[in-house]
This record gives sequence, structure tokens and C-alpha cells, in this order.
Amino acid sequence: MSATRPVLPACSQQETVVRNQTVKADRLPRRYQAFVPMTLPDRTWPDRTPTAAPRWLSTDLRDGNQALARPMTPARKLAMFDLLVAMGYREIEVGFPVASQDEYDFVRMLIEQDRIPEDVRVSVLVPARDELIERTVESLRGARAATVHVYNATAPLFRDLVLGIGRPECVDLALRGTRSMMRHTERLLGDCEVGYQYSPELFNETEPEFAVEVCEAVMDLWEPGPGREIVLNFPATVERSMPHVFADQIEWLDRTLSRPEYRCLSIHPHNDRGTGVAATELALLAGAKRVEGCLFGGGERAGNVCLVTLGLNLLTQGVDPGIDFSDIDRVRRTVEHCSGLPVSPRHPYGGELVHTAFSGTHQDAIRKGFAALEAEAAAAGESPRDRAWRMPYLPIDPQDLGLGYEAVVRVNSQSGKGGVAHVMSARHGLDLPRGLQIEFARTVQAVAEATGAEVAPDRIGRLFEREYRSTADETKPLAVRHAPVPTELFVDGAGPASADGTVRAEEVRSLGATLAPWGVEVRDVRHTGPEGKSADPGREAAVYARCAFPDGPAWGFGRGPGLHAAAFSAIRAAAARAGQGPAEPDPPAPERARAQGAAPLPAEHR
Amino acid sequence: MSATRPVLPACSQQETVVRNQTVKADRLPRRYQAFVPMTLPDRTWPDRTPTAAPRWLSTDLRDGNQALARPMTPARKLAMFDLLVAMGYREIEVGFPVASQDEYDFVRMLIEQDRIPEDVRVSVLVPARDELIERTVESLRGARAATVHVYNATAPLFRDLVLGIGRPECVDLALRGTRSMMRHTERLLGDCEVGYQYSPELFNETEPEFAVEVCEAVMDLWEPGPGREIVLNFPATVERSMPHVFADQIEWLDRTLSRPEYRCLSIHPHNDRGTGVAATELALLAGAKRVEGCLFGGGERAGNVCLVTLGLNLLTQGVDPGIDFSDIDRVRRTVEHCSGLPVSPRHPYGGELVHTAFSGTHQDAIRKGFAALEAEAAAAGESPRDRAWRMPYLPIDPQDLGLGYEAVVRVNSQSGKGGVAHVMSARHGLDLPRGLQIEFARTVQAVAEATGAEVAPDRIGRLFEREYRSTADETKPLAVRHAPVPTELFVDGAGPASADGTVRAEEVRSLGATLAPWGVEVRDVRHTGPEGKSADPGREAAVYARCAFPDGPAWGFGRGPGLHAAAFSAIRAAAARAGQGPAEPDPPAPERARAQGAAPLPAEHR
Repeated sequence: MSATRPVLPACSQQETVVRNQTVKADRLPRRYQAFVPMTLPDRTWPDRTPTAAPRWLSTDLRDGNQALARPMTPARKLAMFDLLVAMGYREIEVGFPVASQDEYDFVRMLIEQDRIPEDVRVSVLVPARDELIERTVESLRGARAATVHVYNATAPLFRDLVLGIGRPECVDLALRGTRSMMRHTERLLGDCEVGYQYSPELFNETEPEFAVEVCEAVMDLWEPGPGREIVLNFPATVERSMPHVFADQIEWLDRTLSRPEYRCLSIHPHNDRGTGVAATELALLAGAKRVEGCLFGGGERAGNVCLVTLGLNLLTQGVDPGIDFSDIDRVRRTVEHCSGLPVSPRHPYGGELVHTAFSGTHQDAIRKGFAALEAEAAAAGESPRDRAWRMPYLPIDPQDLGLGYEAVVRVNSQSGKGGVAHVMSARHGLDLPRGLQIEFARTVQAVAEATGAEVAPDRIGRLFEREYRSTADETKPLAVRHAPVPTELFVDGAGPASADGTVRAEEVRSLGATLAPWGVEVRDVRHTGPEGKSADPGREAAVYARCAFPDGPAWGFGRGPGLHAAAFSAIRAAAARAGQGPAEPDPPAPERARAQGAAPLPAEHR
Repeated sequence: MSATRPVLPACSQQETVVRNQTVKADRLPRRYQAFVPMTLPDRTWPDRTPTAAPRWLSTDLRDGNQALARPMTPARKLAMFDLLVAMGYREIEVGFPVASQDEYDFVRMLIEQDRIPEDVRVSVLVPARDELIERTVESLRGARAATVHVYNATAPLFRDLVLGIGRPECVDLALRGTRSMMRHTERLLGDCEVGYQYSPELFNETEPEFAVEVCEAVMDLWEPGPGREIVLNFPATVERSMPHVFADQIEWLDRTLSRPEYRCLSIHPHNDRGTGVAATELALLAGAKRVEGCLFGGGERAGNVCLVTLGLNLLTQGVDPGIDFSDIDRVRRTVEHCSGLPVSPRHPYGGELVHTAFSGTHQDAIRKGFAALEAEAAAAGESPRDRAWRMPYLPIDPQDLGLGYEAVVRVNSQSGKGGVAHVMSARHGLDLPRGLQIEFARTVQAVAEATGAEVAPDRIGRLFEREYRSTADETKPLAVRHAPVPTELFVDGAGPASADGTVRAEEVRSLGATLAPWGVEVRDVRHTGPEGKSADPGREAAVYARCAFPDGPAWGFGRGPGLHAAAFSAIRAAAARAGQGPAEPDPPAPERARAQGAAPLPAEHR
């Protein structure tokens, strides 16, 4: 054999052979067995509702970290730890110290650099084996308060296949682990407030009465009592059953396990069937008091249960989760940075698309919802932020997550006038009259269909300007070939001096008087309340004019430092759109129309 | 105003003002109200288990498409339609024809180009408004079988806020929509087998008895009967409640609605609380017969319920979903292509990380699970693909999804010998002896910790070659300074002629005889069963040798066209690793050691 022969083959023959074997689709189901649920016909959890948040434990730094192709660096671990602390998590599993030197060193660093706040309890996970427990406990030296979390697999598949032991040996493993934990913590963690957590691993696949047997044996040894809690943690290590089956298991456990005052019933759900959040919520109704999970559902395979979804599901039911989600973008960015994995754009609450409506009917409803909220708040003299949130299609106020309303409505070919109107209002501060909404939405729809893409808010703004603003030299007198009669003027926004609407009302009356000789009727004066645009004294006036011309009516839009300037700009724009260019040789249009002698606007009105 | 002034401002003042208002975290929960569940203490669904798949409707082309910043092009819509047909979906909602010209044209194209298989029924959605229904029905002209799906909002929030109507007007809307649908289909779809579907939109937020009132009125008009079904579809348009509450609603509906033989109780769940799959599964136990959803949970906001998860959840409970998931990668790629959105790496069943274990303990268990599966299959004389799937940490056989086992175990600093051994076996066809596993895993772990990254299977293979293969000129006689005594040889793989292990056993005996004078003992002969490596006559032999030297033992690995060549290559490699270089000036090592006169190996043994 020479040194140049190829190295090991890329794929073994065995694998190819096996992969080439096909199984007929209708035989496939026979390879899988239904999960056999326990019988609990007198379950009580379905009639309960959540009233308080559970204790939370984040295992982002342990189960979450363990599941990454590229585990977190110490700097990323620290960023995650600091995020969790800032959000309000008070129990944080910081690692699996015997998994690698990095894991061990990170725990040491937290302690030696005094990075654990007084009210935060860290915990570490370790299998029930003496030499591993010793090294794990060593990693905690100097900690103020820490939990040692010992586990061993109790499920029959694992007893038989992986460990080759029976039930008694399995109980014995748990007891030896507990004894070892007690011995080493006593020896090494003198000043630490030591907590103990035990997990019958793969609980959900374990015979329930055997799980209880192991836990009772462990409790007999640990002797929980006043000031000496034990956390009994029940992992659905691989989610195998429907969520209500897990809830039944938990209700039965909670009824059956002794010492309810001194043991904390904790759950550790995974998401292999996509029902981890549901399993957790139902199990909490069923008696669980503590939940272990990861932000945005990180963790092995399909992830641990998502702490963000659980927390915000509680909030939207009116229950305080005790966790700060007021800057969801920061949470998402940090998690993405630390894990190197993206958060799905459809992740409830945190995904970039979940606060957005593209469909026209949804957008219409949201617009009406916002209008109602603002009206209600104005009537009560409150901020909309203090009012109850009852919004079509938006289960949570994006502002409660530190988000703006920019993304609430996005416009594409599926959208309609409601979406366009919302963008013009929310993004550009322009409340278009209904007729103009309908007309302009057609322009936007044509662009959306031609490009096949979303039409961005800025582009919608530019489309509107291009379509409805006059490009004429506005220093020239207003003069169009045919008089704009009858004309409706929709006045929006305030003139420079009108901070409270009083002066503004006067200005509108004055505008009406000025335009009357032109046959112009001021039809609608918008006033958007104390927080609205009119409260901004520096803001320009905006006017929408619908003018009738011989070839039909046309809309125009104008802005200006005052209502007069804006109105004449809008009329000029409408005339231009109707093909009614300036009429220098002709007499000024208003004169021709009504012969009431109204002069071309003097320059100071512009 | 000059033409150069900036266009509309990027962000309105109003929004900034509102965003600067903060709400204290503890006041937030008061903005949200708990969903008030209905009372159904005699619910029966929790004691049922799934026994059959529901009817599926894919709304990827409607609700899914509506939710994309860039809606699908006709080509992408067609790719999605063809995928859905190929997977086995028989009811496909193909669009919302009045939403845009593109939508309308796509429906026409399907019909005019005869792209709808005989056993597939397309459906289209339309609000309950006459002019929209007329145009929608027009889009279906020439279809063989089609369902017109009419909806109107029935929830009080929408009646009050969006529509400004009371209950009677709301019922009337539904009736007018139904009448309009009947009139236009009669007029325009003479030869079509027309189906009718009605949805009280936002059903889950509608008073249940009012939802029933509307549906009964619609049924009175449609007059369902033999051969004249009505699909009554109950959308959780925005998921607002816990999943068991939805199930209670459905069980109550199913008990209450008349004409159970002729109405199909359908559900259309969304995922705003991350419990869409659970809500669907529980509602199916509660009496729903049909589910509308999207592949990989596409759809507005947090998506519609995921049809992939639902289908494979059924399969893993031993129930045939009736859908072909045997090439999950194709499904994922097509959906990503059509939607332009990524599928999460943690999406159950379809995510790229969900069939992978990184943690050492998980990997160990999986290795044992595969060994047991193969042993069991061999004992039964069957393929492992025919055996029941009982695998630690892997809820489904990746091969049932068209995936290989390459990704089942991936190695990083969290892994251990089990993972490394699995990769060497599954990817490189080498079953390392346990002692060598432990030693080599340390090398891999050091690389993982130094790089902080995953160690790819190919790199693990190269590391192994570099560490344990001899680079010496193998045409030279085998001669080392100190005799490799005692020596264990682990023989793996077969020589060129050994198709069934018979010749091989003979060859092993011959190798033993040849090596005996060198003090070499052949310790373990691996034989991996009928599908295993030894069945491949063209495969090289592989030998692992653990040799004792004055400075301690060392492992070596060799390959060769026969056992002799491989064994001597392995011994040579072990000697080189122990610093026992070639000993040209000295007499050959075996002679020195035992003085039994064994000659350096003749060339033909190499």
C-alpha cells in the first residue's frame, strides 16, 4: 500500500446496502408503537386555568449548549448567562462540568470572578456516578448557592438495552449517586447553600410507579424537610406522547409522591412532537411547579420547551411571567449570537414575521382596531399603552416587546387599501381619505403584481409623492384651465402655530373663506387627538384635494407651512393630474368658473 | 416648496411619541385578559387515542402564500401544487382568486392546462360577498371537482369593531354568501362536482352557541344530505387559548351540530401560542374529522398548524397518515424554495439537527440501540428495516424519511467515545475495539476543544489515519527494535475471497499460525452479520493491533488485501507509534525476542 492511496471511504458499504432497502409506505406504521397512556379518568387539570408563573430554570447553557455543532465559547456562554440574569431567571443550569474542560472552567470562572448575583442559583448536571459527581461538586467550590442535579436513566428501554440492569440496580444507582452527592458537597461546599435536584431520566418512558419508587428512595436518603427542599425533576427527554398524556402523568405523580411541602415537582419537556409548549402548559395545570427549558426552544434535536413562548403565553392570559421580555429583539439577537442558530421567522412572539399582516382583510381589521384603541384611550384621557389590548390578528402589543408598529402591516400583492392606508398613516403620518385610499391602493397593487415582491413603506411613500404631489413651480400663480368645481378638501395636520387645535380651527375657517370664491368646499378636518400630529407645532399642514374637472375628478396632495399653501399645492397637483396645465394665456380658472373675481393666490399664501 | 425637499419622513412623530411611553412590567399583565374557557366537565376526548388519519387539506397555496413578503410566483405555486399532489394530499386550497390577478390566473392555469389529477379536489376561498363570490366561482369554470369555501367573521370583536353589525346581520351575511355561492355555481359550474365549505371566521373567539346558530342556518339553506356534504370549518384564526380548551370547544360542537352524517367537522388551527399541533391533535380526539394546515407550518404570523409534524406524529404512534414523507429533504427543499423562508433546524422531523445527537451519553445509547436492532434483525433473519423501531433518543428511523444515518451522531467537545466510535463505524466502516475507542476519542476531543467546533466525520477519519496508520515503506521487511510481545490483534473486515466468513475463519487461523512465532495472539475476530462488511468480497481486511513495547503498549491500525498484510501493517504502525523504528542494523525483532527464527514477512503477505 502506498502513501497516496485514498483515505477511508466517504460512506461505508453497509450503509449503502441498508439505504437501498425500501419499505413499503403502508408497512411503515407497523414499525412504530402507540404510546400507552396511563389511566386517569378523574383527572382535574382540564378544568383549571393558569393563575401564576412557575419557577423557571434555564438550561440554555447546558442542554442548549450540548446540542450545538459548535458549542458556545466562554465569551458566548457569558453573554447568555448575563442575558438570562437580566431577563430575571433566578435558576440557571450553567453546565455539565464533566463533559469537557471548557464546561468545568466556565463554572469556575463564574464563581471566581464573582459573576453570579446574590439572588441567582446556579446548577450543574451530572450522571449518578461517584467519580463524576466528585469532580462536578469540585467545580462549585466557593459558590454562594448552588444546586447539584444528579440523574440516572430509569426507563425500561435504557435499563435493558443501554445499562443492562434491573429495577433494583437502577434504584441503587440513584441512591449511590445521592449518597455521593451528599458526601462530596459536605466535604467540599461548606459555606455553600447546597440544593439537590434528582431526575429519573426519560421519566415519560418510565413505568410511573417505578419512577415514584426511585424518587421515594432518593427522598428517604436526602430527607427533605423545612429549609431542605428537594427538586424532583421529570424529564420528557424525548417527547413520545400527546401532551394531555404527559399532564395525566404529572397529575398522578403529584397525587402520589409523598412530602408535597418539601419537594418541588419540576418538569423538563422536549419538543420532538412539536407539542412541548402544550405539554408544559397542561402539566403546570396538573401540578408541576417548576419548568426547565431554553430560550427560543434551543436544545438537543427539536429542542427543549421554549421559555419565551411559555412566558409570553402567560402574559397574554393576564398572568405575570416574572420575566422581562420588553426587548425581544435583544433576546433574539443574543440567542442567535450565542447558539449560532437562527430563530424561525414564524417563532411565536419572537419571529420576524409574527407581528405582521400581509392580507388585505387582516390589515383592514388591524387599522380599525388601532383606531378604536386610540379613540377609547382619548375618551378615557389615557395613553393607548394603558388600555386593554383587544386587537384583531395581533395577540400581543408589539410595543410590549419593545417593537414598533412598522412591521404590523406589510404590503404585497395580497394586500389592499387597508394595508396601504396603514403604512401611509403609521409610517408617513398621512391619513388618506377613503376615496384616495382606494385609488392609491390600485397603484401600489400594480407595482406589487409587476414586481412580485413586497412594496416597502418607503417606496409606498415615494409612489404617493410621485403620483399626487405637484411638481410645478409653486411661485407661479395658481391657474388652471378649468375651475376645480365642486372640490372637496381634506385637511390633515396642523399649521405651524396650532398646538392645541384652536388656532387651527380658526385657520381652517379662514381657508374656507379664501377658497369659497373658487367653489372649493372644505369637507373634512382631521384632528387626531392629543398625541396626534396636530399637537406638533413644527409640523407642516397636509391637504388632500379632490377636484372635479371636465374630464372627471382627480385627487391631489399638498403640503405647506400653513393650510393655505398646502391647499393650493394640492389643487395644483390635482389639476396637473387631470391634464389641466397652467393657463397663462387664459384668465385664472376661478374667475372663469364663477366670475367672482378671486385673484391668483398671492405669494404669501404659499 | 422646491422639488428637492426630502420626501415623506421615515417615521411619524406619533409613533415615536407612543414608543417612548413605557409601561411598568408589573402593569403589563393587566392589559391582557385570560381566555374564558367553556365548561365541559364531561369531556370524553382525553381518554381517546388516535386510530386513523383525518382528511387533510393543504392551504399552502392560500393561507401559506398570503403570508409571504414575496408571494409565490406562478412557477413556485405550481412546484408546491405538484409536491402536494405527489405527497398524497387530496384536498388542496389553491388560492384566494379575488386577492389579485395572479391568484385568479393560477386557478385558471391549473384547470385550463388540466393539471389537477382526477382524485384531487381543489378549493378556493372567498369572503361572503356576492360580487367576490361571483368572480371566485368564475375562476373555477371547467374544473372537474371543486370546493367553494365561503367565510365571514363571526367573533364579537369583529362584529363590533370591524363590521359594526349585530348577530342577526352576521347570520344574514353567511346566508347571503351561501345563496350567492349556490346561485353562481349553478349558473357557471354545470359539469363540476361542486362542494361547499363554510367557515365562521375566528370561530375560537366566537360565542360557541352563536357559531352553531350560524352553521345551522347555513346548513338549512345548503341542505346537506346523501351525496351532498357540507364542510363546516372552524378556524382558530388567531390561537388564543390553551389547546385543551379548543378541544373542549370541538367536542361540544360535534355533540351539538345537527346532521352529523352529512357535515364534515373541519378545523383550521393557527400557532400563535406555539400549541397549534397540540390543539389539532386534541381536537381530532374530540371529534374533528378534517384538518387544514401548511407544510412546515407556513402561514400568516406564527403559521398554520404544521402538516408534516401532524402526519409524522401519527406515523410514530403507529397510525398511517396516508401521506408520503419518504423524502423529507425534498419536501423541505421545495417548501423553502417556494416560500423563500427557511425551515428551522429544530423543526420536528424536518429540521437539519433533529436526527442528531451531540452529547456523549446520547451517542452511547444510540450505538447500543443500533447494535441491538441489528442483532435482533439477524436473529430473526430479517432486515433491520422490517423490525420495530425502539431507539434511544431517535423517535423515528431517519431512513423512513429518506435520510441516512450520517447525521445521527455528530461529534464536538460534548461528545465522547461513543460518538467517535459511531462515526468510525457508520461513516468509515471501522469497528474500533473498546480500548482504541477510548484512546482515539481523546485525540478527537482535544481537536474539538482546541477548535471549539464540530469535528466532521471526514476529519475524524483523517485523524485516525494519521494517528494509527503506518507511513513506513511497506515493501521493506517488518522489523522493529523490540518485539511486540504480548500482542492482541483485532481482526475486522474480510479478505478478498471470504464472501461468507468460511474462508475468512480459515484465513484467521492461518494468520494466527504465521504470527505465533512472533508472540502475537489473535484476540478478537469481528463478524458483522450477513449485511455486514465481511459480506463484501472486494473489501480490504482491517486489523487493529495493540502491541506491548518496553515503553508501554501502543495501538496500530493496518489495512491490506488480506489479513496477513493488514496485520503486519498494523504491527508496524504500533511499533512506529511506540518509537520502535525499523531496526535495519539489528537482527529482526522477532528473532531477538523469542529466537524462534521467524523471518521478516515475505512480500506476498503484504
